[in-house]
Amino acid sequence: MKERHSIAQVLIVGGTHGNEWTGAYLVQKWQQHPEFVRRSTFETTVFLSNPMAFSLNKRYVERDLNRCFHVADLNNPALSSYEDQLAKTIAQTFGQSGKTPVDWVMDLHSTTANMGQTLIVDQHPFNLRLAAHLASQNPDVRVYQSSVVQRGLRTLCPLNCTIEVGAVAQSTLHADRFQQTEALTYAILDYLDRYNQGEDLLTQSLTVYRHLRSIDYPRNQAGEIQAMIHPKLQFQDYQPLHPGDPIFLTFDQETIPYQGEAVVYPVFINEAAYYEQGVAFHLTEKQEISIE
Amino acid sequence: MKERHSIAQVLIVGGTHGNEWTGAYLVQKWQQHPEFVRRSTFETTVFLSNPMAFSLNKRYVERDLNRCFHVADLNNPALSSYEDQLAKTIAQTFGQSGKTPVDWVMDLHSTTANMGQTLIVDQHPFNLRLAAHLASQNPDVRVYQSSVVQRGLRTLCPLNCTIEVGAVAQSTLHADRFQQTEALTYAILDYLDRYNQGEDLLTQSLTVYRHLRSIDYPRNQAGEIQAMIHPKLQFQDYQPLHPGDPIFLTFDQETIPYQGEAVVYPVFINEAAYYEQGVAFHLTEKQEISIE
Repeated sequence: MKERHSIAQVLIVGGTHGNEWTGAYLVQKWQQHPEFVRRSTFETTVFLSNPMAFSLNKRYVERDLNRCFHVADLNNPALSSYEDQLAKTIAQTFGQSGKTPVDWVMDLHSTTANMGQTLIVDQHPFNLRLAAHLASQNPDVRVYQSSVVQRGLRTLCPLNCTIEVGAVAQSTLHADRFQQTEALTYAILDYLDRYNQGEDLLTQSLTVYRHLRSIDYPRNQAGEIQAMIHPKLQFQDYQPLHPGDPIFLTFDQETIPYQGEAVVYPVFINEAAYYEQGVAFHLTEKQEISIE
Repeated sequence: MKERHSIAQVLIVGGTHGNEWTGAYLVQKWQQHPEFVRRSTFETTVFLSNPMAFSLNKRYVERDLNRCFHVADLNNPALSSYEDQLAKTIAQTFGQSGKTPVDWVMDLHSTTANMGQTLIVDQHPFNLRLAAHLASQNPDVRVYQSSVVQRGLRTLCPLNCTIEVGAVAQSTLHADRFQQTEALTYAILDYLDRYNQGEDLLTQSLTVYRHLRSIDYPRNQAGEIQAMIHPKLQFQDYQPLHPGDPIFLTFDQETIPYQGEAVVYPVFINEAAYYEQGVAFHLTEKQEISIE
């Protein structure tokens, strides 16, 4: 137990995207009732990360806050958009060289895709152990491993995760999704608390959905989309997609099949915010990994 | 047949709310392929009504376009917002005193509520006959009768309807909803065409859901919502709500029951755009009416 690096400062963030209401309203709840996120072995801070975007009911004001945490960007004084300034302030406060460096960050998101209760983690062994424990406790929890590090807000410190719960429309609250996000947050806090107390919470293995690549909508030369997610793919996140399975339906009712050669597992299917990013869905491979 | 007032000019509008993509993309399809909405007995015009809101991916730029068609507002030169100007231009073009007065308007909307395939009509006998015919053809079609005339775009002429299909998240396309909206539009065009040709398409009766009143979310003194749609009410549009049934769940997990005295039928439950309008859902009464 004494050899462990203990978690002293925990940060819970919501509203990083201002039209994803689940996390923003949970943060407001916990700011009024901090007892729900208080644990005996660490300090918890809750924080509405993009208040202007939330009050405008937009994903972001000028730039996606969750793409603003590259070290080079944080150190670039020429970047002065609202979100760039916000990211710098957040990093100066909670980052590793900040005033109150945090040991654990979780960022609460929602999605219009049918992602259920998803944890997004990187490959850090601590984060994988936590994900494995949560997945063993709750079979509905899915773990998505993004191989491309986008330097989102959660990368303020090495120990972190993003929670993505859906499907829920932007700018709405969906009580089931709200309660699932809340329960997942409490399960993580409990894990950190028990870890600090020296408990051995090791789970031997974990199923992860590892990012392979992103698929864009078919578009014309002007960049306008020419097809929709096929009805047979809509809401089928984490389900196997076989070569030849339908993925798109053109506006003229033509089916476009998946042309890959292996079975893959699409995620973030028809996420509203990803149209402008050129992403209809991400493809993942399903892997069983051993946990050290 | 000769006594009938025939329909000569038909207007199909989409994108009145710029983040309701179903109608906007259908309009773009039909602008490229007018043959789909062409019929032998009338002229069809298709029209993206709020292009700036659509390109900004917002419901509206300055003001909800679908609340700008009061005659007094159209005649008030002091009203100069983007949408007020747009409404005046649209009325001057397609209104009863405009350059190309239309005989029929249908406005294509989507909603985050589980409204299925909804026609919104007023009490004009022609509109009710059309609704009755469509409902008799397709048992999934529901007819919502808004008693409060909001002077939406469709009121450019007395013969009109609004189509609302959902649930679909704002700023997304959902292929099933797209196809349902498209099929409903073609069914209406076919009805108008057969009407013009003197066919008797009378259906004896129609089930309508008639607007009673709107219910807002519980709010604190600052106007902030204090509860969500209860999980047992979410997506239950058009289902009977009995006195004592749960309607809201507070953030502290307290259930708030319906306190009315009669069975009612909620609609537009958890429509994203209605949070700012103070509407959690509308209550309707279900009525069987005779068609003349």
